[in-house]
Amino acid sequence: MNTKERAILLMHCPDKIGLVGEITGFLQSNNGNIISLDQHVDPESNEFFMRIEWDLNGFIIENQKIGEFFNTLIAQKYDIKWRIAFADAVPKMAVFVSKYSHCLFDILSRYESGEWKVEIPLIISNHDKFKHVGKRYNIPYYHIPITKDNKAEQEKKQLDLLRKYDIDFSVLARYMQILSDDFISHYPNKIINIHHSSLPAFAGAKPYESAYKRGVKIMGATAHYVTAELDAGPIIYQDVTPITHKDSIKDLKRKGKDIEKIVLSKAIWSHLNNKIISFRNKTLVFGS
Amino acid sequence: MNTKERAILLMHCPDKIGLVGEITGFLQSNNGNIISLDQHVDPESNEFFMRIEWDLNGFIIENQKIGEFFNTLIAQKYDIKWRIAFADAVPKMAVFVSKYSHCLFDILSRYESGEWKVEIPLIISNHDKFKHVGKRYNIPYYHIPITKDNKAEQEKKQLDLLRKYDIDFSVLARYMQILSDDFISHYPNKIINIHHSSLPAFAGAKPYESAYKRGVKIMGATAHYVTAELDAGPIIYQDVTPITHKDSIKDLKRKGKDIEKIVLSKAIWSHLNNKIISFRNKTLVFGS
Amino acid sequence: MNTKERAILLMHCPDKIGLVGEITGFLQSNNGNIISLDQHVDPESNEFFMRIEWDLNGFIIENQKIGEFFNTLIAQKYDIKWRIAFADAVPKMAVFVSKYSHCLFDILSRYESGEWKVEIPLIISNHDKFKHVGKRYNIPYYHIPITKDNKAEQEKKQLDLLRKYDIDFSVLARYMQILSDDFISHYPNKIINIHHSSLPAFAGAKPYESAYKRGVKIMGATAHYVTAELDAGPIIYQDVTPITHKDSIKDLKRKGKDIEKIVLSKAIWSHLNNKIISFRNKTLVFGS
Amino acid sequence: MNTKERAILLMHCPDKIGLVGEITGFLQSNNGNIISLDQHVDPESNEFFMRIEWDLNGFIIENQKIGEFFNTLIAQKYDIKWRIAFADAVPKMAVFVSKYSHCLFDILSRYESGEWKVEIPLIISNHDKFKHVGKRYNIPYYHIPITKDNKAEQEKKQLDLLRKYDIDFSVLARYMQILSDDFISHYPNKIINIHHSSLPAFAGAKPYESAYKRGVKIMGATAHYVTAELDAGPIIYQDVTPITHKDSIKDLKRKGKDIEKIVLSKAIWSHLNNKIISFRNKTLVFGS
Repeated sequence: MNTKERAILLMHCPDKIGLVGEITGFLQSNNGNIISLDQHVDPESNEFFMRIEWDLNGFIIENQKIGEFFNTLIAQKYDIKWRIAFADAVPKMAVFVSKYSHCLFDILSRYESGEWKVEIPLIISNHDKFKHVGKRYNIPYYHIPITKDNKAEQEKKQLDLLRKYDIDFSVLARYMQILSDDFISHYPNKIINIHHSSLPAFAGAKPYESAYKRGVKIMGATAHYVTAELDAGPIIYQDVTPITHKDSIKDLKRKGKDIEKIVLSKAIWSHLNNKIISFRNKTLVFGS
Repeated sequence: MNTKERAILLMHCPDKIGLVGEITGFLQSNNGNIISLDQHVDPESNEFFMRIEWDLNGFIIENQKIGEFFNTLIAQKYDIKWRIAFADAVPKMAVFVSKYSHCLFDILSRYESGEWKVEIPLIISNHDKFKHVGKRYNIPYYHIPITKDNKAEQEKKQLDLLRKYDIDFSVLARYMQILSDDFISHYPNKIINIHHSSLPAFAGAKPYESAYKRGVKIMGATAHYVTAELDAGPIIYQDVTPITHKDSIKDLKRKGKDIEKIVLSKAIWSHLNNKIISFRNKTLVFGS
Repeated sequence: MNTKERAILLMHCPDKIGLVGEITGFLQSNNGNIISLDQHVDPESNEFFMRIEWDLNGFIIENQKIGEFFNTLIAQKYDIKWRIAFADAVPKMAVFVSKYSHCLFDILSRYESGEWKVEIPLIISNHDKFKHVGKRYNIPYYHIPITKDNKAEQEKKQLDLLRKYDIDFSVLARYMQILSDDFISHYPNKIINIHHSSLPAFAGAKPYESAYKRGVKIMGATAHYVTAELDAGPIIYQDVTPITHKDSIKDLKRKGKDIEKIVLSKAIWSHLNNKIISFRNKTLVFGS
Repeated sequence: MNTKERAILLMHCPDKIGLVGEITGFLQSNNGNIISLDQHVDPESNEFFMRIEWDLNGFIIENQKIGEFFNTLIAQKYDIKWRIAFADAVPKMAVFVSKYSHCLFDILSRYESGEWKVEIPLIISNHDKFKHVGKRYNIPYYHIPITKDNKAEQEKKQLDLLRKYDIDFSVLARYMQILSDDFISHYPNKIINIHHSSLPAFAGAKPYESAYKRGVKIMGATAHYVTAELDAGPIIYQDVTPITHKDSIKDLKRKGKDIEKIVLSKAIWSHLNNKIISFRNKTLVFGS
C-alpha cells in the first residue's frame, strides 16, 4: 500500500443522522477506498467529528478539485467545517528558539534522520546562541532580539519571514517570549508551544521552581496550540515523570527536558500527520 | 442521550472498497443514528475491522431481527465475521479464584458499587478459602478441588455449572489451575486470565521470583484471553510498575497485586463494553 | 531475618558534620545492626533528614527506653526532631467516607486480606450509605451527618470517637466535608486525604468537570496530609492516567476511581511503614 | 555548596554489624561532611551495599590518597569491594553506532549542550554513514567494518583505539554487532547497550517484529551492561510505551526510538554520576 497517495479529510459539524453514510458514500462512489475512519460525537456539545483517510489510486476526482466537490456536494448541506490534507505533502515548519537547546536539537535530529515529513525553512531566535546550528543544517537563522520597546516591529519582521518562506505552522521550542495577540491571530491552531509543566498546574513563568516549592511527586510537560490567553490554548499532548524529595531544582530541570522534548515532538508528529481537530479550546487527537 | 438503547456491531472481513459506506448506509437508511464508529484496516493482513455503535430510538428493525437482516443484506456478501451486542444487556460472568484475594475483591467491589453492567451468578474455586465471601455477596460459591487424577471430571462439573447458570464469559482472578484444551474450546475468547508479568516475559509459573532474579527495573501484568497454549492467548491489556533494587520478592508481590487487579478489571471493562475484536491471536481494543 | 523485631528512627535537623557517624555509632555501639539507612541533605534549606531501620535482636536498650536514651544522648545536642516506630506495631486507623465506595472498598479489601499491618476500629460517615459495610467487617460505623449549623458539635463527636478508640491516624476516603482548622490541629500529619486531581491543578470542588472542560490529556490523583489550607497540604503520592477526547465526564470519573484508590492506598502504605517525613509543607517519602 | 569538590564511595561486602558507623566514622573523623548516604542490605544474599557522597572541602586526606587509606583502614577488614569517584571528574566515553541515528543524535545533543560531564573522544562504527556527524562535533570517527571473517582483527583495532584514547566506558548506541566474549572481558560493567525491547521479552534480533506479531499492548526498551551472554547483562534502566492495534511495525519503530534514546541516556547519566553498583548480574541504581 503506497502511503503517499492518500488524502485525509478532517471535519466537524452539528451531529445529524446520515452524516457518516453520506460522507463515506461520496468517497466510495468515486472509487476511494477508505483506509481508516475515526468518528466521534461529543455528548456535551452534540458535535460530530470525523477523520477519514482514503487511497487516491483510482479516485476519480483529481486532488486539487476534491475540496471543491466535497464542499459543494456535502459540506454546505451540513454546515461542516473541514480541511483536506494529502499524505505526500511536506509542510513548512518554522522553529522559534531562545536559549535552551533540548527541544531544538531533538527537532533537528528527527529532521536530519528523515523521521518526519517536514521542511524547516528557517529558525527564528531572540538570541544568536544557535546561529552555528542553523549553519550546520543549512537552515537560515534569523536573530531577532526582542525588547519591551521593539516588540511590535520585531514581530512584524517575524511575520514577514513566515510569509516569505510560506510557512505552514510554527513551533515554539522553548521560545521565551510571549507572542502578541495580533501575531497569534494570523496563525490560529498553527503555533505549537511546549510548556514545562502539566497545565493547568504552574502556568506562567518558573514552573520548575513552583513545582519544587509545592513538593509535587510528578512533574509534567504540555504541548498546546497558542491562543491569546497565556498557556491556556488547546492541549495536544501531555506527559509526566515521577519526582522525589531527592530531586533538586536542577534535577527537575534535567528531568523536565526529557519529557519536554518528547512531548513537543509527539505533538508535532500528530500535527504533521493531520491527526488533530481543534474545537472550542480543546483538541481531538486521533491515535497512530 | 439514553445510552441504554444502543446497539453495537463488531466485525471483520477481507478489506474491500465500499464496505464502510454499505454498512453505514444499512444503518442510516433504517433510521439508525451512528454514535461512534471506529474502523481500521490492518496493513499486514489487509483485514478490515469495524466497531459501530448506534442509537436504537426510531431504528426500524426490531432488536432481535437486526442480526438476521445484517447477515442477509450485508455480511454474506463480504464474508464478514460479526457479532451484535446491546448496550443494555447484562452479561453473566463467572469468577474463578484460588487463594489470592486482590483480584476477586476488586471485581466484587466494582460489582457491589454498580460500576459494571454485569451479573455474577457464581464463583468457582479449587479452595474453600473464600466461601464466606460468596455468602457475603449472595453469590453461590462452588468449591471444586482439583488433583492430577480428578481434573477431567472436575472440569466437567465446572462446565455443567457454566451451562446451568448460562454464563457468557469467565474471569480467572488468579486461578492457579491450568484449564484443559477441551475446557477452553467451549469458550473461545470468553475466558479472561490475568498473568502476573508483562507477557511474553516470564510466562509460566513464578514470574515474581524470575523477575527478581533477573533484576528487572519494571514489572508488569497482562490480561489475555485463554487459549490452548499456556499464557500465549490474545493480549487485551498490559501495564507495568517501576521496581528498584530495594524491592524484595515480597515487595514485588505487593506492587504486583495493584497492577494485576487494575489490569484485569480494565480488560473486563473492555470485554463488557464490547470494545474487543479478536483476530489471529491478537486483539483490537477500541478506546473508551 | 525477623522483620517484626525492628525499630525505625525518622529525624531531621540542621545539617552538621558528624551527624551520621554519631547516630549510627549510637545504634551500633549498643549492638543494633542497621538494616537500611536513607539519608538526605536538602540543598535549599540545608536540613538533614534520615530514616534508619535496625534489628532489635540483641539491642541492649529496651524498646520503651530507646527514645529517652536517643533524646538525651544525641537529639538534644543537634536539635533533632525525631520519632521512633517499631515494625511490629499495629497502628489504629479511622476511615472517613461519604458516598463513593471505591477507596473504602479498596482499603477494606487490603485490610481483610492482611495486606497491611493496621487495625481499623471505626468508620465515620456523614451518610448512612455504608452502614452494612461496617457490619460486614465488624467495624463500628458512626453516622454523623454534617450541616452548616451542626458542624462544630459534630466534629466534637468525631474527635471524641477518635480519642475513645485511640486512633493514630485518619484516612479521608473521598470524605466530602471540609474539616475545620481546629479539627485538623489535633492531628498534624495524621490525616491523609485523596484529592481527585493532580494537585495543584484543579484544587477544590469538581476537578473532573474542570479537567474535562480544560481538555487535559492526562488526569491525576493526589494523596496528601490535610492542613488548614484546602488541598494545599504536603503531597505524599501522585499518579496520572491518560485521557483522550473520547472520554466523557463519566469516563473521567471511572478512570479517576482507579488511580484514586491506588494512590490513596500507596500513601497509606508509606505512612503505615514509617516511610514519610514531613517538613515545611513537603514530604520525604522513602522508597520500598 | 560546590558540587565539584565531592567524592563518592561505592561499595559492597557481606553484611556485618558496625559497618555504617565505621565507614561514616572514617569520613567524619577526617572532617568529611556527608552529603548523601544510601545504604541497603539485600535480604536474599545478606550483602551490604552503600553509596556515600561527601564534601572534600577541609577533608584532611588528599584526593589521590583516599583510596589507599580507606582500603587499609576499613575495606580489608570487612572484605569490601569498593571504588572511589570524584564529582569533578570528566569520564571518557566511546560511542559505537551502526545505521540508526536516534540514540547517537540524542547523546551528541546532550554532549553539545553540556548536559553531561563527559568527554567523547571517538565514535566507532561498522558503517561510514555518520562520518559527517563526527566531523560536525570534531570527534574522530573510525569506520571499522565487520564481517564474519575479519571480526577478531577488527575488534583488536577497536580495543587499541579504546586504549589509545584512554576510554573509561563505551556506549552501544544501537550498534548492531555482537561483541566477542574477549572484547567484553576487557570492560566489565563498562559497556552500556540499549536493547529495543523490555528484556527479557524479545531478546535477540527483531524485537519490533516479534512484539507486533505477539500483539503486545506495551513496548519497551532496556539499557544494560554487556556481558558474554547476549542481552542478559545487568539491567540499568527500563521503560515502556503503550501500543494499540493501530500501530504498524513502522509505528512501533517510531515509538520505540523515543523510549530507546531516553532510556539509554538515563542509564548513561546514572553511570556518569556514579549511581550504579553491579552485583551478581543485577544492578543497584541509586536515585537522583
